[in-house]
Amino acid sequence: MASGRISLSIWFFFVFLINPSTSARTTSFIKLPRSDGSRYCDSWRLAAETNNAGTWDVIPSVCVDPVADYLNGDQFLSDYNVIADYALSFAKSVDISGDGKDVWVFDIDETLLTNIDYYKAHGYGSEPYDSNSFSEWVLQGTAPAFDASLKLYNALQKLGFTIILLTGRDEDQRSFTETNLRDAGYSGWERLLLRGPEDQGKSATDYKSEQRAKLIEEGFKIRGNTGDQWSDLLGFAVADRSFKVPNPMYYIP
Amino acid sequence: MASGRISLSIWFFFVFLINPSTSARTTSFIKLPRSDGSRYCDSWRLAAETNNAGTWDVIPSVCVDPVADYLNGDQFLSDYNVIADYALSFAKSVDISGDGKDVWVFDIDETLLTNIDYYKAHGYGSEPYDSNSFSEWVLQGTAPAFDASLKLYNALQKLGFTIILLTGRDEDQRSFTETNLRDAGYSGWERLLLRGPEDQGKSATDYKSEQRAKLIEEGFKIRGNTGDQWSDLLGFAVADRSFKVPNPMYYIP
Repeated sequence: MASGRISLSIWFFFVFLINPSTSARTTSFIKLPRSDGSRYCDSWRLAAETNNAGTWDVIPSVCVDPVADYLNGDQFLSDYNVIADYALSFAKSVDISGDGKDVWVFDIDETLLTNIDYYKAHGYGSEPYDSNSFSEWVLQGTAPAFDASLKLYNALQKLGFTIILLTGRDEDQRSFTETNLRDAGYSGWERLLLRGPEDQGKSATDYKSEQRAKLIEEGFKIRGNTGDQWSDLLGFAVADRSFKVPNPMYYIP
Repeated sequence: MASGRISLSIWFFFVFLINPSTSARTTSFIKLPRSDGSRYCDSWRLAAETNNAGTWDVIPSVCVDPVADYLNGDQFLSDYNVIADYALSFAKSVDISGDGKDVWVFDIDETLLTNIDYYKAHGYGSEPYDSNSFSEWVLQGTAPAFDASLKLYNALQKLGFTIILLTGRDEDQRSFTETNLRDAGYSGWERLLLRGPEDQGKSATDYKSEQRAKLIEEGFKIRGNTGDQWSDLLGFAVADRSFKVPNPMYYIP
């Protein structure tokens, strides 16, 4: 088990600062008064993304419309792109050994694939999680890629990273998941790790930490990790740098 | 030194969800196209607040105006208030032993006190940090309290928490700091811990982790911790729950 001090190193690993994608200095000329609901919901999203909100089950009911607006608008994509850019900048700074042991871990749902169409039909996170209903969606295998994640994924492969997919999906969803990933454009992963019977009942943090620890025991060096949940990233056997992509719809402990 | 697994527990400790401060469901009726610069800067702020941006020295030059708008507008205060509300909700769930050993740690700059007037005169974080200039500001002792932090501070004392202040300010700034804190409305802290000669050159994360570890060795239980920097919160000897208040102006490793 990695010590807290080692865990710390993920966060403070030096990284090249990226340049803003827009070079023009622009300001807003007109300001509209924002509704208190929207302002609160922006604050709630920030609290959730920074893990200040702790464990939560459903999004605040007052935030359904603001969260939908955010997810369907340009800000969400921008937020995603900027984080993917930081991840790629860090990746380029890694000294790849060339022995195939430099790993980048990706979560799948809301990280490589977007289930926005499912959540759109289920209140954008305002309805409690329904495992049966979500399993039906998974079996359809129609979740598209996030463009930013697909670009990052491909760029990491070109840089020489070994890609390992680590998901909370169950082992019996393997073939549907593989097909969906390939249909969405992903290929060339080294392993797809799903929850086996022995992993049932474990928190995502414990399950994913254990899986990462096994990789390290095998000699892999986990350089980077991208996930939409803090439980994808924290725990033990953490990556050198972890990247939390936004997801204001649900929280998995 | 706490293990990564223990460190994990801060993040996943169960907390009561707060109710939105506004109960009315409100939506925006008019949407203005946002400038790309502002959109990028909102994304940059999110990346910084979630620690995705890694180490950074100054804010992107394109973001000076958007960051100033954010800091001087209502969103920043709302973000601060919502996080303080989460902290208080968690605090109310703590079973206080009554022996004075249940501690809440606060950072000072940009946590209890706001130096916005200083940074306003120094480009809101777009100028590199100048320790001489900032020291002169500290010696003036005129930094006001964040209202949300003062309310939280007082509420925690009423609940029975022992307050410990842990700052990166130097020991020779003690008296100015104490006076400023009192003038701003704070009182009744158990200890004010500043950097001594032996702490010079240490990263904030190491210095603050060591100080927290000493508190734990003394028998204190660090229930909560509030800071504007990840280096206030991460490392070892971390609190049961940590709360990151927003600060888009600077990053301290």
